Amino acid sequence: MSNNIPSKGYAAKDASGKLSPWQFERRPVGDNDILIDIKYASICHSDIHQMKGDWGKQQYPQVPGHEIAGIVAAVGKNVTKFKVGDRAGVGCMVDSCMTCDSCTHGEEHYCDNNATIFTYGYPDKTSPSGISQGGYSNNIVVRDHFAVRIPDHIRLEEAAPLLCAGITTYSPLVNANFNIGDKVGVAGIGGLGHLAVKLAVSKGAEVYAFTTSPDKVKDILAFGAKEAIVVDDIAKLKPYKKKLDYMISTIPAQYDVAAYASVVKPRGHYTQVGMPVGFELTLSNIGLANSRVNFNASLIGGIPETQEVVHYCADNHILPQIQIIKAEEINDAWLKVMNKEARYRYVIDAATF
Amino acid sequence: MSNNIPSKGYAAKDASGKLSPWQFERRPVGDNDILIDIKYASICHSDIHQMKGDWGKQQYPQVPGHEIAGIVAAVGKNVTKFKVGDRAGVGCMVDSCMTCDSCTHGEEHYCDNNATIFTYGYPDKTSPSGISQGGYSNNIVVRDHFAVRIPDHIRLEEAAPLLCAGITTYSPLVNANFNIGDKVGVAGIGGLGHLAVKLAVSKGAEVYAFTTSPDKVKDILAFGAKEAIVVDDIAKLKPYKKKLDYMISTIPAQYDVAAYASVVKPRGHYTQVGMPVGFELTLSNIGLANSRVNFNASLIGGIPETQEVVHYCADNHILPQIQIIKAEEINDAWLKVMNKEARYRYVIDAATF
Ligand SMILES: [Zn+2]
Ligand SMILES: [Zn+2]
Ligand SMILES: [Zn+2]
Ligand SMILES: [Zn+2]
Repeated sequence: MSNNIPSKGYAAKDASGKLSPWQFERRPVGDNDILIDIKYASICHSDIHQMKGDWGKQQYPQVPGHEIAGIVAAVGKNVTKFKVGDRAGVGCMVDSCMTCDSCTHGEEHYCDNNATIFTYGYPDKTSPSGISQGGYSNNIVVRDHFAVRIPDHIRLEEAAPLLCAGITTYSPLVNANFNIGDKVGVAGIGGLGHLAVKLAVSKGAEVYAFTTSPDKVKDILAFGAKEAIVVDDIAKLKPYKKKLDYMISTIPAQYDVAAYASVVKPRGHYTQVGMPVGFELTLSNIGLANSRVNFNASLIGGIPETQEVVHYCADNHILPQIQIIKAEEINDAWLKVMNKEARYRYVIDAATF
Repeated sequence: MSNNIPSKGYAAKDASGKLSPWQFERRPVGDNDILIDIKYASICHSDIHQMKGDWGKQQYPQVPGHEIAGIVAAVGKNVTKFKVGDRAGVGCMVDSCMTCDSCTHGEEHYCDNNATIFTYGYPDKTSPSGISQGGYSNNIVVRDHFAVRIPDHIRLEEAAPLLCAGITTYSPLVNANFNIGDKVGVAGIGGLGHLAVKLAVSKGAEVYAFTTSPDKVKDILAFGAKEAIVVDDIAKLKPYKKKLDYMISTIPAQYDVAAYASVVKPRGHYTQVGMPVGFELTLSNIGLANSRVNFNASLIGGIPETQEVVHYCADNHILPQIQIIKAEEINDAWLKVMNKEARYRYVIDAATF
């Protein structure tokens, strides 16, 4: 007889990008595992990319979702990090080797043994379906190390987006080591970008936000940006050439990287966190040479830093601007995300699965 | 009556990539100009790319060549930098605005007014043909600022390749600020790469050279590299993962950038100097994220730094490995460059034009 745990959620059944209800099973709670009753799961553009096969062929049914917040409902016998009733969050990964150089230095997402198991769609022998299944569901079983504590002074629905959008922007911003008063650019003001603006502002930067949506300007200034620049033509970047100390781009598609990078001072750094189709970007090598800017890419962040961003945002009231939806509204919300209509993060009430 | 100066050289007449003799005219020697009797011009892979239209449609006939060494034959009345009989070299550019922030900081190749005139194929109102015409010819007229002095203790034929291959690798190596004993990688061991190896060795680096040509290994070790790695399979890079402090790639084509970058330590820098077809590179954003390496591109170097590399190489006996050819052998030499058979720089004897 199986000790698997029944779960219900919304899954993609094929590459159409349409989700529908699905009942499935989670593995039993192991000695180092916790079971979380999910309260909220928010929608990340990555969910859409992956379900549609933009990043490679997928196994279906697959439950997306890697911005997860809930209450611990059970703990394995070795678990000391959590007890039943604790508030917990899960982000973009649920396991790794835990022994390699990267894993032991808090960079489990870069596991040197390639043993990182990302939260959904990843081969996972412990999962009854054979792949990891994400957070658009009413519960999840996860190794305790890969869950973070959510303090009492932040609402679960506002904590959820921090688990991917928050850490993905916080990690490069912190690692950029900019100084108070430095000019920091943020390109692409969606779920990730609006948090990047708020985080950079809270860290003392003078923030320049670049968007293609004129109707986001008012919001962006309210988030604390010094300027909101509407890039309806690439020429709009020109007045900012060599002006910024650092820049982060959350644009999740192919775009003119070198043109955006040219607003950073020579020898400065520019970080790409949005992941385009096929994970590939084509850039103008001569344009990048002209800017003399260093281009790098960043993928989420490790567990210790994920814990840090949750505490930092709770302590400093850096909160995502969210809109709560029911499970049955997910497909509609996905269309809005693709059409750049999200303002700025949809959060699914898990009670509606 | 025209005061233009007759010149003869080898030109491309169309995008076939075949050169043939051509007689043309240079502008008269202006007040700030010098006339150089060219003694040697060497062959750069860029010459081939541009004549074939790989970097955009070209005007023909066009004389390539931007590694030029010769003797000053005339000077304009304002010229104090040179006198008749001096040894002089010309590299990748022949003019710029001379007043902007980049130009006044010795980065004329990044002129903020986009007024850099590259040595061949660039719109140039002062040129009788309407475009700049390069160094595969018996003379050139150039604004004095854009010629460098070639000291007596280096042969002209060995100085020529320093004007592009030398400065293009020297500039990023010097700007990388590596320490003595640091591990520096060089990818692509051709005209640029073999100089990069010698320059990095002379600056105290422990050099790791990556080549696809097994028969270059012996040469590479003779150039002073610690190791020569034959990358006949991308997996050959794996043992070097995260091992190097810095790396420069001279590969002038599309390749797996992220795989090569992965041999650099996290947070390290990787510089692309080879210019691929269309000036564009497609790279794996997720691969680059995994490596945590900063990618940048570098284009030649400014005039002061070009003068510096010529002096540095003369003083430290950092010499390119060259093969002297006659003008009539150019087409054959180009084929060998394309087939990676050059060892390592062909230098044309300008007396044979
Ligand atoms: Zn995400
Ligand atoms: Zn690991
Ligand atoms: Zn060249
Ligand atoms: Zn200029």
